[in-house]
Amino acid sequence: MIRVTVWNEYRHEKKNPKVAKIYPKGMHGAIAAYLNKQQGIKAMTATLDEPEHGLTEEVLAKTDVLTWWGHLAHGEVNDKIVDRVQKRVLEGMGLICLHSAHFSKIFRRLMGTSCILTWRETDDKERFWVTDPAHPITDGLPEYFELPHEEMYGEHFDIPNPDSQVFISWFTGGEVFRSGCAYHRGKGKVFYFRPGHETYPTYHDKTVLKVIANSVKWAAPINGPKLADGAWHDPIEKKRK
Amino acid sequence: MIRVTVWNEYRHEKKNPKVAKIYPKGMHGAIAAYLNKQQGIKAMTATLDEPEHGLTEEVLAKTDVLTWWGHLAHGEVNDKIVDRVQKRVLEGMGLICLHSAHFSKIFRRLMGTSCILTWRETDDKERFWVTDPAHPITDGLPEYFELPHEEMYGEHFDIPNPDSQVFISWFTGGEVFRSGCAYHRGKGKVFYFRPGHETYPTYHDKTVLKVIANSVKWAAPINGPKLADGAWHDPIEKKRK
Amino acid sequence: MIRVTVWNEYRHEKKNPKVAKIYPKGMHGAIAAYLNKQQGIKAMTATLDEPEHGLTEEVLAKTDVLTWWGHLAHGEVNDKIVDRVQKRVLEGMGLICLHSAHFSKIFRRLMGTSCILTWRETDDKERFWVTDPAHPITDGLPEYFELPHEEMYGEHFDIPNPDSQVFISWFTGGEVFRSGCAYHRGKGKVFYFRPGHETYPTYHDKTVLKVIANSVKWAAPINGPKLADGAWHDPIEKKRK
Amino acid sequence: MIRVTVWNEYRHEKKNPKVAKIYPKGMHGAIAAYLNKQQGIKAMTATLDEPEHGLTEEVLAKTDVLTWWGHLAHGEVNDKIVDRVQKRVLEGMGLICLHSAHFSKIFRRLMGTSCILTWRETDDKERFWVTDPAHPITDGLPEYFELPHEEMYGEHFDIPNPDSQVFISWFTGGEVFRSGCAYHRGKGKVFYFRPGHETYPTYHDKTVLKVIANSVKWAAPINGPKLADGAWHDPIEKKRK
Repeated sequence: MIRVTVWNEYRHEKKNPKVAKIYPKGMHGAIAAYLNKQQGIKAMTATLDEPEHGLTEEVLAKTDVLTWWGHLAHGEVNDKIVDRVQKRVLEGMGLICLHSAHFSKIFRRLMGTSCILTWRETDDKERFWVTDPAHPITDGLPEYFELPHEEMYGEHFDIPNPDSQVFISWFTGGEVFRSGCAYHRGKGKVFYFRPGHETYPTYHDKTVLKVIANSVKWAAPINGPKLADGAWHDPIEKKRK
Repeated sequence: MIRVTVWNEYRHEKKNPKVAKIYPKGMHGAIAAYLNKQQGIKAMTATLDEPEHGLTEEVLAKTDVLTWWGHLAHGEVNDKIVDRVQKRVLEGMGLICLHSAHFSKIFRRLMGTSCILTWRETDDKERFWVTDPAHPITDGLPEYFELPHEEMYGEHFDIPNPDSQVFISWFTGGEVFRSGCAYHRGKGKVFYFRPGHETYPTYHDKTVLKVIANSVKWAAPINGPKLADGAWHDPIEKKRK
Repeated sequence: MIRVTVWNEYRHEKKNPKVAKIYPKGMHGAIAAYLNKQQGIKAMTATLDEPEHGLTEEVLAKTDVLTWWGHLAHGEVNDKIVDRVQKRVLEGMGLICLHSAHFSKIFRRLMGTSCILTWRETDDKERFWVTDPAHPITDGLPEYFELPHEEMYGEHFDIPNPDSQVFISWFTGGEVFRSGCAYHRGKGKVFYFRPGHETYPTYHDKTVLKVIANSVKWAAPINGPKLADGAWHDPIEKKRK
Repeated sequence: MIRVTVWNEYRHEKKNPKVAKIYPKGMHGAIAAYLNKQQGIKAMTATLDEPEHGLTEEVLAKTDVLTWWGHLAHGEVNDKIVDRVQKRVLEGMGLICLHSAHFSKIFRRLMGTSCILTWRETDDKERFWVTDPAHPITDGLPEYFELPHEEMYGEHFDIPNPDSQVFISWFTGGEVFRSGCAYHRGKGKVFYFRPGHETYPTYHDKTVLKVIANSVKWAAPINGPKLADGAWHDPIEKKRK
């Protein structure tokens, strides 16, 4: 059983009736509901305004994969919680960063780059092309899929070269974007997946949800080796005379 | 159920009593026996001297993952069978190349490089260090493991930069080697795993066998997207006036 | 001085008056003329119908970087010449594969994959986005550049994950393409650059030509270490008692 | 002319007579003196105890490549200076992190991982094997080179998978280490090079110095494209009716 915590800033839904109508239980609610219908996945939720943003040591210790959506309030996320999440990722917890989480503290921390991109809100069509069809995240997908209306994110996207470039998006306005990017970081796996502007029903789209479920399965921790602890390490080979 | 075909050249075992004693049913027999004890894996075997090297269209169509051991007789492998295996890998079949299969026609074909390395048979100790602890192939492993006696393979190993560098080996004589190398090729996954000189009981070693089983699970095909067929592709977007 | 050999199939120019009008001295003539105006580069040409396709041992021994354009007659390229070029690349010669050279024997040989893609000839606009702005091939480029009319090449492009993804293209018809792909292979560097359909004046475009010159400079051989020769290698460390 | 700033913590040299004897002008002095003998390179130095650690806006603006050595006092480096250096790297300044700079704030910031490793000070021999002989940093090198005595750094080294794995080291005690790791980050290039424990004359070794000079040349900025500024980006393609 993969234990997922679906984290959401959960501000747009409270402020903007249009968003609330699309996501009456929040984007986290929609994503968690879908994941809970998948065999082998159990999803909980957590949001910014809960104590410790809902990400206590106890919660993270029981989280196999964390999904993250943030936008308006990246700056309100406490640095100590970011430290805690980063530590857990390096220890093996999966992290799925969605849409505007490209600019979250945790994603920028793990990438080491600015994560700046270009953007535009004008009802562009987005078409996702699969560029790594061997990757488990593409399981059950067609060679491309579309969202009729989405915010545009365009290159240059300031990220490290992904370990696997899973999707590249085409936009009506003439842009391209590396929209599905997979990374190993420590013992953890990180996936950035672009779509999910709050004013569109993106997290009701079956293919988008399938990608999220696939990424959760891919990012689930393995029982990997103990990591180095930074301490003195005696020679394994005996000293020669 | 992952259907594995364990392929072996199966010549050393017939010629050399020392090898036959270690592997009375061939190296393929030892590997297949282990895999058949793992839940979710069903292994068959095939060898060079069978018709079509045991790799008929029918066999390959029912193979999810092929493991390959060859050494003396790389040149006897029919080019048409190599074509057939390459095609199946690009379609999604996993391929695990073991030890001297670094110089097999199929591995060199898929890498595009010479795959040349340095080597020595002098009972070196080999120590495998995990360098990508997020990789599923490292599931259940310690931070390093050893083989008391193995043939040495050393750098420079002429291969493309792996998509994941899973293991790096240390040898007594002063060499290092990229001993676990994972690649995506088309819809297929390819893993090169170094150990397995025929005169040592390497394929009776529990950790080595565990790595092979892990790599089989990682390399099993997904239900990925249809690949491009090389044909004319009409515009998806309508032409503007 | 970087010594470049600009290789061209040189058939379209002889058969099709439209192509001949755009490239009166062949595409190779246009590219070589530009390169010869660059400081530090000296370009020669070679074509399919010359003896040994113009790629004798002597010519290749004096070639630092080879550029390749082929389309109609990939099958007429002698396998022995392909072996020779591959050997030289692994020894350090740079190789720049242009446009339909994605399906040349030498590119497919070096990639190990099918190199299949989708395509269409309908005057699409192509826009190249820089996705690796640290790469020397992007020196002096804007963040994107365009060709008003080109053949479309679309994903999925069956290639190994590039060592650097330098460009990604957008096409009017709704497709994307990994249009600038850099690889290390042995001691050699390989760059695939997409544009150059014979019926468009692509190799008169200043930005395209600049990219070719940049790629030549990047791919020029260094005085790198001797490669392994595949022979027995005595232990460097003395045997312990 | 490549303008290099050689940065050093410069504490060991002041405290430890053994170190001062090896490096009477500091490690920075030894490195800068070598670099200043190379054609096309002009090196200055900067140290921790200078105002702003010697890394004012003015100094960084005129620095093409920064080399960094730190060990005892990583924590004393001001976070604002780390921000400033990171920004410059993403804008194109090269960064060469030496030895214990693996644990500097700036390297950890750019990697996004813990950068933890194992270590031991016991006069191990270190042997560097070239694993990417196409990389410019290997220009003029043999297939391997040695340091008779060095501190040991061993795997697992918690870093992102390098864009190029240039060197892998062998140690007497039985360890291996990814000792030469090249990355692109934004418009900048970053190279981690392992050797340089303060009590050994490592920065007087000709091959080590050559690698540093090569890495400086490789990391020098290009005149690359303008990066995205994070602002609204109008559609390039006109809206259809």
